[in-house]
Amino acid sequence: MQLSAVYEPVRQELAEVNEQFRLLVDSQKTTFPELYQMLSLVLIGGKIIRPTLTLLSGKLYSHNRQALLMMATASELLHIATLVHDDAVDKASIRRGRSTVNKVWGTDKAIILGDYLFARAGEFAAATGNLRVVKLFARTLETISRGELRQDFSAFNLNQTFEQYLERITSKTASLFAMATESGAVLSQAPEEMIQVLINYGYNLGIAFQIVDDVLDFTGTKKEMGKPVGSDLAQGTITLPSLLLLERYPEDNPLKNIFSNRNNQQEIKRAIEMTNNSSIIEECYQIASEYSTRAGRGLYLLPDSPNRKSLLHLADYVLERKR
Amino acid sequence: MQLSAVYEPVRQELAEVNEQFRLLVDSQKTTFPELYQMLSLVLIGGKIIRPTLTLLSGKLYSHNRQALLMMATASELLHIATLVHDDAVDKASIRRGRSTVNKVWGTDKAIILGDYLFARAGEFAAATGNLRVVKLFARTLETISRGELRQDFSAFNLNQTFEQYLERITSKTASLFAMATESGAVLSQAPEEMIQVLINYGYNLGIAFQIVDDVLDFTGTKKEMGKPVGSDLAQGTITLPSLLLLERYPEDNPLKNIFSNRNNQQEIKRAIEMTNNSSIIEECYQIASEYSTRAGRGLYLLPDSPNRKSLLHLADYVLERKR
Repeated sequence: MQLSAVYEPVRQELAEVNEQFRLLVDSQKTTFPELYQMLSLVLIGGKIIRPTLTLLSGKLYSHNRQALLMMATASELLHIATLVHDDAVDKASIRRGRSTVNKVWGTDKAIILGDYLFARAGEFAAATGNLRVVKLFARTLETISRGELRQDFSAFNLNQTFEQYLERITSKTASLFAMATESGAVLSQAPEEMIQVLINYGYNLGIAFQIVDDVLDFTGTKKEMGKPVGSDLAQGTITLPSLLLLERYPEDNPLKNIFSNRNNQQEIKRAIEMTNNSSIIEECYQIASEYSTRAGRGLYLLPDSPNRKSLLHLADYVLERKR
Repeated sequence: MQLSAVYEPVRQELAEVNEQFRLLVDSQKTTFPELYQMLSLVLIGGKIIRPTLTLLSGKLYSHNRQALLMMATASELLHIATLVHDDAVDKASIRRGRSTVNKVWGTDKAIILGDYLFARAGEFAAATGNLRVVKLFARTLETISRGELRQDFSAFNLNQTFEQYLERITSKTASLFAMATESGAVLSQAPEEMIQVLINYGYNLGIAFQIVDDVLDFTGTKKEMGKPVGSDLAQGTITLPSLLLLERYPEDNPLKNIFSNRNNQQEIKRAIEMTNNSSIIEECYQIASEYSTRAGRGLYLLPDSPNRKSLLHLADYVLERKR
């Protein structure tokens, strides 16, 4: 499944979302060249899955096209803002194959640029003129930051459960996927029952997406990922593969060394090898696949359309993706 | 002029804003004790001027009490969120006589806590149910972060004008004061002309307030301020006193040394002494006083009431305050 096929029903709208980004960047060119450079770095090269979700969900019923475009733009901007702060928190140097904001301009500028992007995202959300969507937007940012805080406070802690992992990825990833689908559905005045179908889709898709993301940190290459592999372990973050690795090898487990010495490159390599040489990866995909299936389960209730097909395809894509 | 007299007409409402904070903090006590501790640190001890502005402006006409309380809470939360990030950016250790979040928990946690507070502020703003207010809220955060970014990019740069200084403090301080008054006025359905009077009041009051803040960094004591004096110079930030000092002593000026060696304690001390031994402080107060006067100028157009008197008194207070 190619992502380009998923985009097809909303190709025109995605081009207009990109145009919003271009306008946002270009408007700073003469008045604030440094901000222009920072925005140029962060506002391009994403997979734009979240605005695609908003648009696909929003075009299922009669909709206000302009409001939908505003919200699709807000979904991606909110995502990018969280990435800028995540990278600052993680002291990450590379993202999408390019230097991070904190790497080029320092943590200080990354903090403020992230705030600026949150504000811009909020302005686009408010431009929908829909209060339910605005409230959803603010609540989602609360959920994401609470999840990030949980992750940060549980770093380098070996005693974690699958439930805690699930709660964390639901907060930090799935909540934004669900915001993207719910906002689209709300703006298209979908019946409440269908809004719930799309919320359910968003949550489960987001969980599947994040599990695969966490797997790719073990199986991917730096080139594919556009960032170093094994970075979760280096950050002290337990994800599904390392959770299963701990379960499987409770005695001689490289994580114990990594988490006590912090960031031990050789032991990280060993953990990655052990994981790849076991059935853990397969097991992770099994679990991700269950969430992907759950995501698709209610979609038959929605009006038959190319959009609905794309949502189904996207549920396959998140399992197949390599970056 | 005592601040307590200014608060008088909205004492009951301010108590309810404080109750909102208490609820927000306490709701984390059992579910997320670390977040509870962080919130306990940052949500108390402020001068709560911004919610006071929202309430005083909002009670001039017939108003929805609940919406006004939500927005007053949002004004203060937005302010606190920016302080948490400011302190992280400045690597400040002390604020209001207490350790900063970044000092106790590190920059990473401060970044995420700030985001959490932005989200919470946004939720309170959205709870007003008023789209104009929500849009104003998002635009204000954009203005503030843009101002902070300007300040950060112009740090350690000696070539700055009064206009640039004015633009910066308008963005980072006055815009939030103006949001506080405008939102109150909008929520009380004041006539548009009166909304403009209160916006004008907020902007000019904010400028006067920030000039005095910048002066106190030269004239105050650590005990009064609850943070080290001379911190602007240490951060490489030019404010009105240092701008006038540069103008007055273009040749032998300690700022040249401070800004080339960065953070030279002895030269910072000399700069503070030179400023205090000149008429610069007086001149700064003169300028602040002009803005304070401008703030009060249109107030006579508003309905005569204890609230209007308090707004006038607040314009005096910002000039007299010692912390």
